[in-house]
Amino acid sequence: MQRILLAILSAFLVFGVPNQSHAETGYDLWLRYAALESGRRAAAEGVVKSIVAPGRTATADAALSELQRGLAGMLGHGVARTSGIVDGALLIGTPADAPEIAALRQPLVALGREGFLIRSAVVDGARITIIAANTDVGVLYGVFAFLKRVQLGKPLENLDIADKPKLQLRVLNHWDNLDRHVERGYAGWSIWDWQKLPGYKDPRYTDYARANASIGVNGVVLTNVNANAEVLKPEWLVKVKALAEVFRPYGIKVYLTARFSAPIEIGGMKTADPLDPGVAAWWKAKIDEIYTVIPDFGGFLVKANSEGQPGPNDYHRTHADGANMFADALKPHGGVVMWRAFVYAAENAQDRHMQAFAEFQPLDGKFRDNVLVQVKNGAIDFQPREPFHPLFGAMPKTPLMMEFQITKEYLGFATHLVYLGPMWEEALEADTFRPARGSTVAKVIEKPVAVTGMAGVANIGSDVNWSGSQFDQANWYAFGRFAWDPGASAEKIARDWAGLTWGNDPALVDPVVAMMMGSHEAVVDYMTPLGLGHLMATGHHYGPGPWVADLARPEWNPVYYHKADAGGIGFDRTRTGSNALSQYAPQVAKVWGDPRKVPESLLLWFHHLPWDRKMQSGRTLWDELVIRYDAGVDAVAAMQARWDGLKDKVDARRWSEVRDFLGIQHQEAKWWRDASIAYFQSISKRPLPAGHAAPPHDLDWYKAINNRYAPGQGR
Amino acid sequence: MQRILLAILSAFLVFGVPNQSHAETGYDLWLRYAALESGRRAAAEGVVKSIVAPGRTATADAALSELQRGLAGMLGHGVARTSGIVDGALLIGTPADAPEIAALRQPLVALGREGFLIRSAVVDGARITIIAANTDVGVLYGVFAFLKRVQLGKPLENLDIADKPKLQLRVLNHWDNLDRHVERGYAGWSIWDWQKLPGYKDPRYTDYARANASIGVNGVVLTNVNANAEVLKPEWLVKVKALAEVFRPYGIKVYLTARFSAPIEIGGMKTADPLDPGVAAWWKAKIDEIYTVIPDFGGFLVKANSEGQPGPNDYHRTHADGANMFADALKPHGGVVMWRAFVYAAENAQDRHMQAFAEFQPLDGKFRDNVLVQVKNGAIDFQPREPFHPLFGAMPKTPLMMEFQITKEYLGFATHLVYLGPMWEEALEADTFRPARGSTVAKVIEKPVAVTGMAGVANIGSDVNWSGSQFDQANWYAFGRFAWDPGASAEKIARDWAGLTWGNDPALVDPVVAMMMGSHEAVVDYMTPLGLGHLMATGHHYGPGPWVADLARPEWNPVYYHKADAGGIGFDRTRTGSNALSQYAPQVAKVWGDPRKVPESLLLWFHHLPWDRKMQSGRTLWDELVIRYDAGVDAVAAMQARWDGLKDKVDARRWSEVRDFLGIQHQEAKWWRDASIAYFQSISKRPLPAGHAAPPHDLDWYKAINNRYAPGQGR
Repeated sequence: MQRILLAILSAFLVFGVPNQSHAETGYDLWLRYAALESGRRAAAEGVVKSIVAPGRTATADAALSELQRGLAGMLGHGVARTSGIVDGALLIGTPADAPEIAALRQPLVALGREGFLIRSAVVDGARITIIAANTDVGVLYGVFAFLKRVQLGKPLENLDIADKPKLQLRVLNHWDNLDRHVERGYAGWSIWDWQKLPGYKDPRYTDYARANASIGVNGVVLTNVNANAEVLKPEWLVKVKALAEVFRPYGIKVYLTARFSAPIEIGGMKTADPLDPGVAAWWKAKIDEIYTVIPDFGGFLVKANSEGQPGPNDYHRTHADGANMFADALKPHGGVVMWRAFVYAAENAQDRHMQAFAEFQPLDGKFRDNVLVQVKNGAIDFQPREPFHPLFGAMPKTPLMMEFQITKEYLGFATHLVYLGPMWEEALEADTFRPARGSTVAKVIEKPVAVTGMAGVANIGSDVNWSGSQFDQANWYAFGRFAWDPGASAEKIARDWAGLTWGNDPALVDPVVAMMMGSHEAVVDYMTPLGLGHLMATGHHYGPGPWVADLARPEWNPVYYHKADAGGIGFDRTRTGSNALSQYAPQVAKVWGDPRKVPESLLLWFHHLPWDRKMQSGRTLWDELVIRYDAGVDAVAAMQARWDGLKDKVDARRWSEVRDFLGIQHQEAKWWRDASIAYFQSISKRPLPAGHAAPPHDLDWYKAINNRYAPGQGR
Repeated sequence: MQRILLAILSAFLVFGVPNQSHAETGYDLWLRYAALESGRRAAAEGVVKSIVAPGRTATADAALSELQRGLAGMLGHGVARTSGIVDGALLIGTPADAPEIAALRQPLVALGREGFLIRSAVVDGARITIIAANTDVGVLYGVFAFLKRVQLGKPLENLDIADKPKLQLRVLNHWDNLDRHVERGYAGWSIWDWQKLPGYKDPRYTDYARANASIGVNGVVLTNVNANAEVLKPEWLVKVKALAEVFRPYGIKVYLTARFSAPIEIGGMKTADPLDPGVAAWWKAKIDEIYTVIPDFGGFLVKANSEGQPGPNDYHRTHADGANMFADALKPHGGVVMWRAFVYAAENAQDRHMQAFAEFQPLDGKFRDNVLVQVKNGAIDFQPREPFHPLFGAMPKTPLMMEFQITKEYLGFATHLVYLGPMWEEALEADTFRPARGSTVAKVIEKPVAVTGMAGVANIGSDVNWSGSQFDQANWYAFGRFAWDPGASAEKIARDWAGLTWGNDPALVDPVVAMMMGSHEAVVDYMTPLGLGHLMATGHHYGPGPWVADLARPEWNPVYYHKADAGGIGFDRTRTGSNALSQYAPQVAKVWGDPRKVPESLLLWFHHLPWDRKMQSGRTLWDELVIRYDAGVDAVAAMQARWDGLKDKVDARRWSEVRDFLGIQHQEAKWWRDASIAYFQSISKRPLPAGHAAPPHDLDWYKAINNRYAPGQGR
């Protein structure tokens, strides 16, 4: 016996060495299912001795398969599947699957179509755990929630957990072109390998669906908002269908972007006027065709009359006219239209900040009930910090869908460690005062209308780590969590993500969470402090360009936004200026309109103030500006120091990658600081405060930097 | 004891389960180092009980590290490193490292700078194995050769192996743009992540270098031959330097493409005339600057006066004038110029087949000795089958460097299983008869001149499997092997690759090799049988376009190449036609010029023949053409059947990928067959031979197919 054991053991010793080439790359995301330490493993083994999974749909299979995969990874061994209830069983399913679940009728009803519960129970003397839901997708979500508890080492006894999403549509927007270029993509190419579809379904599509389901994302817009009509042709729809088939078991619907002029471009028509019966008929036929191919197609996302895209205004029709045309054709199939409010006109002298409100607010009540107006968190464009968009709260009869940008177009691309959770939390917690105090943006988008939702512009690409960096995975993760619950806590999300992604050791999680939670303020400081915005270089938005003043449209130029001159800096949006504040509730306008009351973080967004104006710190505005830039750079250095301290707690490959990226971030933060100070000093004509070094180069040196091949440009 | 063993064993059982997410993706290439079966493992363990590696350079470290990685994977455990010679030691190093190696003086001398020997020896009664070379790079090559023996299960006793490369420069050409688009790339984006360089060196660069070193590749041209002068700017050179640093320990030099007009574009000059002293001085200064940054920079690859690229002809200078200007500046640094012979003029009625010869042959003897003229294997452009390029043998005083295309621009992109070994072998074995019988192309390029080399246009990209498909890795592998030894056997290379990549079981290797060895003839048959060529769709070259006749330059049109008309089909390159045959040696021209003697595989390349002409089979040319198309499709079906039979011998992920790709290939082979037959039948006006089905659609249907977003287009 001893000899046999020795032989077996030596076989393990020989074969058990993991292949070095399978280092942690980040591919596994927050679903690593790393082995638990022994105490927690024993606890989990006590609770999950077997799995009872009577469901028989593709989604039920996905839930079971995920459970088996997760437990095998964390426990180090598979868990047997049994058909009957025994002590230690984990029962997963719907009321139709098992009487023990059907008995949970009352609590289940409240969970709706996507909610789930996880409950410890004793059935005929057997202690069991039940993951139950009204649908298999709910079960799948419950399985992911349970696996998360296990991975995070949370108690698994006496559970009585119920959860359900607060928003109906939780949708990733991929700005992916048909040639696989990703607009604002910093993680490689599009993961949609169109040329090989439908013949080859990359296993990555399944892992993508798993990751999304694990955070509750239930919709994917496959194509760029700067849309291409080609994708609506039959030879492309079969490719879309192939992706839909991979995603369907994971509760994920596919959506496409609809190019407004498609009837002309691929339909051979002379017009795309939404009130032209022929145009409406063309779209109706096209939509009917799509549903023949993809019966659960989600609907369209439309960018119209914005940045050169065609739209209903081309025919002197309103956005409601355009959206409703699609909505009427989609309605019989259960589809929706997500219509973007991101518009600003080619020839409009009005403050760009005000144009979307001016165009959309009067249309409140004019949209069909399967139209969502998709509104960016701020009125300009995904800047490091913006006040909330004035449309939130101002269209009470219209479903408003939040649009966040997960990919960091204006926040340092993939190499800068910037956790967006606090930024989104700030937007969602902002009080619109519409109709009254406490009407936060979160509550506005949760408001019971026909349909609710949140969209996130994806940061996903072909890079092995999906998001271009390890820490950018946290932004994908956080988006899903906020879409599930707009009232979620950014810090709690960060803590969950860190535990799942890096490991449960508090000596690792605490500093990681601290880095994440401070990272957004850091990037604001080294790019656009004190309420500045849109100072990025032209086109690619990579690096500073506050001096840019020569672009065709005024609102494309950074000088339009900072308005620095000898007298001061900032955009006057009070009554003495553009009066953009008039678009907010009076309570908001009153506070933000008063330079003594507005938070200094938004000061220059709303006010043009003298360089010598006294700040809360007692310093002048100019000195404060410089100090903020330096604070941003210093905060990156502090992140570097923290990360250096974690070297022995993180696998070598991921640790080195983050170290190198922080090095790039520090260098680029200095670049931002130096270039910005060199420029603003050329206008303020003031000395730097004591102890703050002059930029190492003159302004022309910074202006000469040309990153024409920076990734992610629109084209 | 038993209890302890049980406890340890159970720990292994718990932790030993490999994470399912680490399925075989193909990332490990032919360096999988999979566990040996027990008999072979025991044999290897007997020979390698310890490692003695006295070398102390970065390259010696790389060799040791690879040895440890490989043995750990194959044996399942690490091998101890010892400092002294003991029984079972594996000693690796150079004469300077150890007296046992210095004692090998005579055999070592013959190995030159890159050769190695592997020898079993007895030293002071200790049986040891020695991997020795004159340089650490030679040692590294020897280590890879030894690891290959182990992986392939070859005997490890009584070894007396010596090997060295027959060509000096073994170079991959990456047609990668600075925005990461890869021209003719079917494996994703460029692996050069320029934006993150030099701050972040992706670990993938190291794995790329390992893979190249394992097959002897010792040079990498990083940038597209359609060149961009930007890369020569200082801010880009620091990025190039970072890559050079990763590659250097693996014996790999970096090269760049030089845009001929760079002095104008980034130098602010008015001319790029190579005889202008200012231009030469600009290039000399630039080259000196490059060597300051990268002391072992390899040199330049230049595409000049070809397809719109600038070049010396713009100033009425010869290619020699242009190349020599670079050569003179590179010479003091030891750099070379690889000057492409792929030229055809915008306004030249001469058969395109003849233009490179006409332009270059007269320049023989006019080039500096550090210039290589880089010649494609055939005179047109990487077609599925071409006769060898007439320049081979015709420039005896000039180093001619072979240029093969590894990426399958004209051979089905990444999804078609086409092993290029037999095609390259055919080219290398072709007898130029210059100066006499037996002067094969291989011998021409091996001929002792100042410098020799072979270039391969890389098929490498960001896809996890590197080459876009599992089987395309074999083409990268085979390129390295042929560059090392142009006389190598395509079948032996295939056998080695299959064993390393899929496993040693003959029941697996034999059918895989059979699939590979027949695959080239299959693609020739379903795309361009009987010596046809260049029938691909415009621009992207994806799919058939034999009908294309409307492009600006005659030689861009497929009709230029097949010349099908009511009277017959084929390009008359005999004396009655273009007389391109006159550029070959008389012995070659005589055989190929006679339609009864030329191999039927090249028949229509050189002859225009009537549709009813009798073939060797007794069939008419028309019938034979149709039958070949069908044979190509059938050969793909046969590959599918073979692969289906290997399901239980291959890991699920890779097996499914290959199955799906074969499915795509079969569908596209039919597309080629159907579209080509529909088109040629519209001209031949002849019925299909009995038993051969009519295309399912009419010709217009095939003409209407538009793959405008196909990958890899030039731009």
